[in-house]
Amino acid sequence: MGYKLKKIINKAENVVEEMLHGMALANPALIHSEGLGVISRKEKASKVGVVSGGGSGHEPAHAGYVGKGMLDAAVAGNVFSSPDPERILEGIHQANGGKGILLVLKNYSGDFMNFTMAADLSGMDGIDVEHVIVKDDVAVEDSTYSTGRRGIAGTVLVHKIAGARAEEGGSLLEVKAAAEKAIQNLRSMGMSMSACTIPMIGKPGFVLGEDEMEIGMGIHGEPGINRTKIKSAKEIAKILLDKILDDYEASGIEMKNSEVALLVNGLGATPLMELYILNGEVHAYLAEKGIRIYKSLVGNYMTALEMAGCSLSLLKLDEELKKLLDAPSEVPGFSVSYGAVKTCVK
Amino acid sequence: MGYKLKKIINKAENVVEEMLHGMALANPALIHSEGLGVISRKEKASKVGVVSGGGSGHEPAHAGYVGKGMLDAAVAGNVFSSPDPERILEGIHQANGGKGILLVLKNYSGDFMNFTMAADLSGMDGIDVEHVIVKDDVAVEDSTYSTGRRGIAGTVLVHKIAGARAEEGGSLLEVKAAAEKAIQNLRSMGMSMSACTIPMIGKPGFVLGEDEMEIGMGIHGEPGINRTKIKSAKEIAKILLDKILDDYEASGIEMKNSEVALLVNGLGATPLMELYILNGEVHAYLAEKGIRIYKSLVGNYMTALEMAGCSLSLLKLDEELKKLLDAPSEVPGFSVSYGAVKTCVK
Repeated sequence: MGYKLKKIINKAENVVEEMLHGMALANPALIHSEGLGVISRKEKASKVGVVSGGGSGHEPAHAGYVGKGMLDAAVAGNVFSSPDPERILEGIHQANGGKGILLVLKNYSGDFMNFTMAADLSGMDGIDVEHVIVKDDVAVEDSTYSTGRRGIAGTVLVHKIAGARAEEGGSLLEVKAAAEKAIQNLRSMGMSMSACTIPMIGKPGFVLGEDEMEIGMGIHGEPGINRTKIKSAKEIAKILLDKILDDYEASGIEMKNSEVALLVNGLGATPLMELYILNGEVHAYLAEKGIRIYKSLVGNYMTALEMAGCSLSLLKLDEELKKLLDAPSEVPGFSVSYGAVKTCVK
Repeated sequence: MGYKLKKIINKAENVVEEMLHGMALANPALIHSEGLGVISRKEKASKVGVVSGGGSGHEPAHAGYVGKGMLDAAVAGNVFSSPDPERILEGIHQANGGKGILLVLKNYSGDFMNFTMAADLSGMDGIDVEHVIVKDDVAVEDSTYSTGRRGIAGTVLVHKIAGARAEEGGSLLEVKAAAEKAIQNLRSMGMSMSACTIPMIGKPGFVLGEDEMEIGMGIHGEPGINRTKIKSAKEIAKILLDKILDDYEASGIEMKNSEVALLVNGLGATPLMELYILNGEVHAYLAEKGIRIYKSLVGNYMTALEMAGCSLSLLKLDEELKKLLDAPSEVPGFSVSYGAVKTCVK
């Protein structure tokens, strides 16, 4: 099996630093805190700062969502490993506009430990820091790197909601409340057709059979629910959506006649062609269920290096969430088929 | 070797139609001419229409560039095969605002034959049609599907230039002249680390050894210049840029002290991480050569299904081209790290 390190890199140990350097060069509105893994907005604003981050390898998440209307800073750890508190502190300082900081973290044990430690340290500097934890993946309860559910691609929608609320001048508690509302209304689930290779490790994290796919796989290759023979796009849509819709029901959230934002997310090596085909199937299935899609986002929003596969995320909307989703933003990572959210990349 | 059809599709023979259906669902500003492979702008404008297209499998090219400021219609053939004249005629009619049509085609024999045939047929309907042919790939002269050089990812920059000139009200000949100027100033070259699989064929188009890459590979897997052991990002940047810069020199185009737009394009399965690392190396090498990068675009702009690899494109700029590159546009396919071109996705 061809598992040589087929990557366009220099040294495996430098990939994150070199990636952030190249990203800042491509985006004049961003700055890179060299050696500290932080990408932040060049133009500082007197508002609540929204900061996210985590392990690298999920690009464009999270640095690609830094910009007006979304994040103020993103903190990158090594590939698939949490950034240490020193880096998170740098992110907090870069994002600090004097009105407090909201940390948006995905539910992994390392991220929780390091982000909350950085929050405590910032408190000693007199910066007011709150956090929210995204745990949108309905596939499994506890997992390899998490106690409780994992945070996956739906996190990008939380960035959008929190960022928009901060941009319109919300207080720290108001921004946090908007993010919490999004988290309550958010459900995701993924599947994978192949593994990815962490540069420093040099071989894939798992092996799927030639005719196998895995349902409920995490974005670091954590095990899902089960392995099955490869299914059609229509069947994949049904499997993922049934589990997501069951979970809404179990939480007492009525979905019939509701409106949702849909994210059809690619994990890195799945062509847009396939994501669009899947989008068509998701539209058809949700229509059967009486659920209206207010917006569809289709593309690579939160990847797992070059993993083939996808995830679906639904965000149940109310008028406030719709308005925040529609608010303009200017970030590098949005688009590759975007739908109707007004995201302007300058 | 794991060459089962690991794709999120329904039936291989329906992938293009289902993709376009799913794409139109995700982008309310676009319409899909069902059964005819055409994506066009819902809002018709009284201006020169710009139409592109070709085989499918290169998404977001070309349908992802339909929208204000770029294309008015994109015509999709089957995967890696030219659309027939009937489809191109539909694209021309959808894009027709009464001021004539510019066809932007990539230099492949099938596209040339079918697009020019459609242009002749449109002429009989009284529609004024001109065409330009992009042949930006400096790797090889004739190739599997082309007499003369192939058209590859630089085509997206021609869409941008022609689309902006049409949007500001240029006449058909003025829009054509802007596109021709971009084509004269454009050079590209790619490399690949792995093959892709056409759904209807079901196995990869070629096989590279575990430690091999191919330089100058086409976007349909056409042979390049040579196969070598895998090189570093820095070496890959130098190999591709040296060939591109030599070609400018051979055409008598002075590059020292010039300004360029740079496109670091992914072929489908190469993570953004690697494209950004490569972007950093390209910036460093061009700085050594005294060439200034006015804008960098980094992302999957013209893919080859799930091929791993990349291409670099340079567009030498003058004041007119800078202005057209900077003009706003609203299309689904731009971004995933975009740099500074003002592209607003509504």
